[in-house]
Amino acid sequence: MAMKHALKVTRKEDFSAWYQEVITGADLAENASVRGCMVIKPYGYAIWERMQRILDDKFKELGHTNAYFPMFIPIDLFEREAEHVAGFAKEMAIVTHHRLEQRDGKLVPAGELEAPLAVRPTSELIIGESMARWAKSYRDLPILVNQWCNVVRWEMRTRMFLRTTEFLWQEGHTAHETEAEARDEAVRMHEVYKWFICDVLKMFGIAGKKPDYDRFAGAQDTYTVEAMMQDGKALQAATSHHLGQNFAKAVGIEFQGRGGKLQYAHTTSWGISTRIIGGLIMSHSDDDGLNLPSAVAPYHVVIIPLIRGENAQDILDYCRKITAMLPKDVRYHIDTKEYAPQNKQWDYVRKGVPFILEIGNNEVTSGSVCVTKRLSLEKQGMSLSEFAGSIEKMLIEHDETLQKRNSDFCNSKIVRVSSYEELSDFFRSGNTGFVQAKWTGTSENLERLDELAVSIRCIPSAQSGTKGRCVLTGAETTTDAIFAKSY
Amino acid sequence: MAMKHALKVTRKEDFSAWYQEVITGADLAENASVRGCMVIKPYGYAIWERMQRILDDKFKELGHTNAYFPMFIPIDLFEREAEHVAGFAKEMAIVTHHRLEQRDGKLVPAGELEAPLAVRPTSELIIGESMARWAKSYRDLPILVNQWCNVVRWEMRTRMFLRTTEFLWQEGHTAHETEAEARDEAVRMHEVYKWFICDVLKMFGIAGKKPDYDRFAGAQDTYTVEAMMQDGKALQAATSHHLGQNFAKAVGIEFQGRGGKLQYAHTTSWGISTRIIGGLIMSHSDDDGLNLPSAVAPYHVVIIPLIRGENAQDILDYCRKITAMLPKDVRYHIDTKEYAPQNKQWDYVRKGVPFILEIGNNEVTSGSVCVTKRLSLEKQGMSLSEFAGSIEKMLIEHDETLQKRNSDFCNSKIVRVSSYEELSDFFRSGNTGFVQAKWTGTSENLERLDELAVSIRCIPSAQSGTKGRCVLTGAETTTDAIFAKSY
Repeated sequence: MAMKHALKVTRKEDFSAWYQEVITGADLAENASVRGCMVIKPYGYAIWERMQRILDDKFKELGHTNAYFPMFIPIDLFEREAEHVAGFAKEMAIVTHHRLEQRDGKLVPAGELEAPLAVRPTSELIIGESMARWAKSYRDLPILVNQWCNVVRWEMRTRMFLRTTEFLWQEGHTAHETEAEARDEAVRMHEVYKWFICDVLKMFGIAGKKPDYDRFAGAQDTYTVEAMMQDGKALQAATSHHLGQNFAKAVGIEFQGRGGKLQYAHTTSWGISTRIIGGLIMSHSDDDGLNLPSAVAPYHVVIIPLIRGENAQDILDYCRKITAMLPKDVRYHIDTKEYAPQNKQWDYVRKGVPFILEIGNNEVTSGSVCVTKRLSLEKQGMSLSEFAGSIEKMLIEHDETLQKRNSDFCNSKIVRVSSYEELSDFFRSGNTGFVQAKWTGTSENLERLDELAVSIRCIPSAQSGTKGRCVLTGAETTTDAIFAKSY
Repeated sequence: MAMKHALKVTRKEDFSAWYQEVITGADLAENASVRGCMVIKPYGYAIWERMQRILDDKFKELGHTNAYFPMFIPIDLFEREAEHVAGFAKEMAIVTHHRLEQRDGKLVPAGELEAPLAVRPTSELIIGESMARWAKSYRDLPILVNQWCNVVRWEMRTRMFLRTTEFLWQEGHTAHETEAEARDEAVRMHEVYKWFICDVLKMFGIAGKKPDYDRFAGAQDTYTVEAMMQDGKALQAATSHHLGQNFAKAVGIEFQGRGGKLQYAHTTSWGISTRIIGGLIMSHSDDDGLNLPSAVAPYHVVIIPLIRGENAQDILDYCRKITAMLPKDVRYHIDTKEYAPQNKQWDYVRKGVPFILEIGNNEVTSGSVCVTKRLSLEKQGMSLSEFAGSIEKMLIEHDETLQKRNSDFCNSKIVRVSSYEELSDFFRSGNTGFVQAKWTGTSENLERLDELAVSIRCIPSAQSGTKGRCVLTGAETTTDAIFAKSY
């Protein structure tokens, strides 16, 4: 089975076509008839639901509550924060009419709105308006809210999961009494994302701060996790923003402080979107399709009954016996659809199911199972009791293998350079990966990076502390930065 | 405590103002700055989350999987189903531009779209397009999908939860091989809604079929649960539609049947929205505010520490001792905010928390709790061990009392009439409630109901089978129907 590949194209041949093949082969999503929009199919959505549950439980554990705010935002609200609107104005869907009319046998927009509405690209302003009503006294702070919703950014070049006009995300928004509390919150949520991306999803990511010129529009500081994909490019996987008092001033989040005086709150926002599914795909998948960490795998075990004529009942009974013996937390599926077992097996390989069982007469008679391990594609026979007794351990091993494989790969793609020449040579010779180098943090000579189609991904939280020369200015500095091509 | 009321206005004085007061008093929602839109605040959203979890678990148990489809729908897709578009064209938000530009110091829409997009009012057509791709053979059926999302219907007169421009809902969509299977599915989901509304939410509702002239736009049959509110009006609480082959033909859901021939699928759709929160409010709340069945109450028990100076630590320790003794499924909250305990108590009465505990020095010293039961507003002292041991039983009694109170009230508001004169007299004399009467099912003389501002809510699934005369035509029939004013 390891001789041929389940996908039509390999990573090496065409990474971009391969990515698309993984999505199609695993039945994760498809293009919709609406430009730039996608349909997240049941198997893809089940992964998102697992992600949601894990994050939502964590947010609640930390004291956040969910709420829901309008998707439509009055345009004049955007005018309140100049940097913010400058960052989003070029990609907003605008609602201008509120009905359709038949005219010359065609449906056309009618009922023009006096004031057009934007579909939310993000919700700092509209949520801030509510916070301004809620925060009357320091006793009402902190306000810790989150919403799971759809947002729209009109993208010209779209790509499934990575960049679509509409996408799903969570956006957390908090308001605090002091600057220190707001900064702590932004950092705390940054750490939650790092935990989620690296520990739960087993991806490789570097946590750090965005360069000043690349912060979220209107933010004071943006913290990011930059994950490395198998083509060596960076994916900004989740961000957390310390917004200072910018938005509080724009929408009037003012409260009575402990001294009795009115003062502005300090706010944060933080989000992770369905884009992370694209990152997950490009981190773990191989030339046979998707691979999933057990935490978000819709199924840990899929059972394919090998039904030929009259043996159906015995085999199905045995399949149910298997599932009855599995530990409670093991998610399974018995596929009884009327399709050929051989095709099904390849389907589940492409879907990245960690363990695929084929159950035929042999297994029923001998009380055994035939297991294909997705990561090695090796088949192994074992007794049913052995399988049921070791599946939890097998899942842990599956996760460890997945993580080690990805982390070994990514670590091998990190290089250190000490001059612009080295940096430039690295990328110009077609190498990919994360380049660690010194940078002073000014905007000087940034255009030299544009020439390489490379950007500063982050200033890692873990700094070496060593002295060196900035690769863009030659000035001495201790600051390490990560340079890479990116999605 | 039972002498005054926690709300400024009673049901009797002004039902509509009272409804608004319940929402404000319980901190469920607020108007947004966007016309017709609302903010669902954390306490209101927590109720919705409980509802979602219960329904979602049930859907999955029945084999449905969640997915996500684009919010934007090309207008020409609506042209495929004439009845459907006629039903929704007058209330759709239309996106016509994809960016904002500064012009004369003001932000204005720019980047006009070649083809305007509608924001989904419902998703039969766009989901049908996907189903047309997915259903290749009878082996691929049934397709059972659901999505939790926001939808937009441009309402001219809006009211919190009941009728807002944007609202949240779930919409289930299924495709089947045969007509019988589709009908069974529509009925099955209708029964799920009846269970949810009557058994889980403890509301009073009559399940039945909508009159032909009041079906969902494009449906063959619409099944509904009509709940009775405390002002005697009906609220259409959830609907399930058997769509026949109408939508399958409109979007081409064609599959290879068992005989090898291509045939059209039979589809259904079914939904329940945040409107049900409005129904829940108008079913159970009283002049002191909200009341909640335990299944969806964010907290079953709220503890208010009566902190005065130096006793704080002892009291907080004792509060934590209480919560440690509560059974695992009991949801609790200790309110340590720096506000006066007396105000807090009234807040939680208005929020409909089933049991409110005030814990001061007395309770700590005597190892007791002081419990206010929300439904009776009676305070009762009991030992901590007694409380912890009986809280589950107390919650069951709370639910039973809630249900009986509402069901007694609603049953008293059902009357039977046998002629139009009786029907007309009933409503013209200012009575409210559900009127059961015979109806032949034709559209003859329906304008006589318009004069009374009354409509036929449903043809109940439970039919008496007795003969009588149609109150609109005088013709003999056995069919019972429910007539009422409605939301």
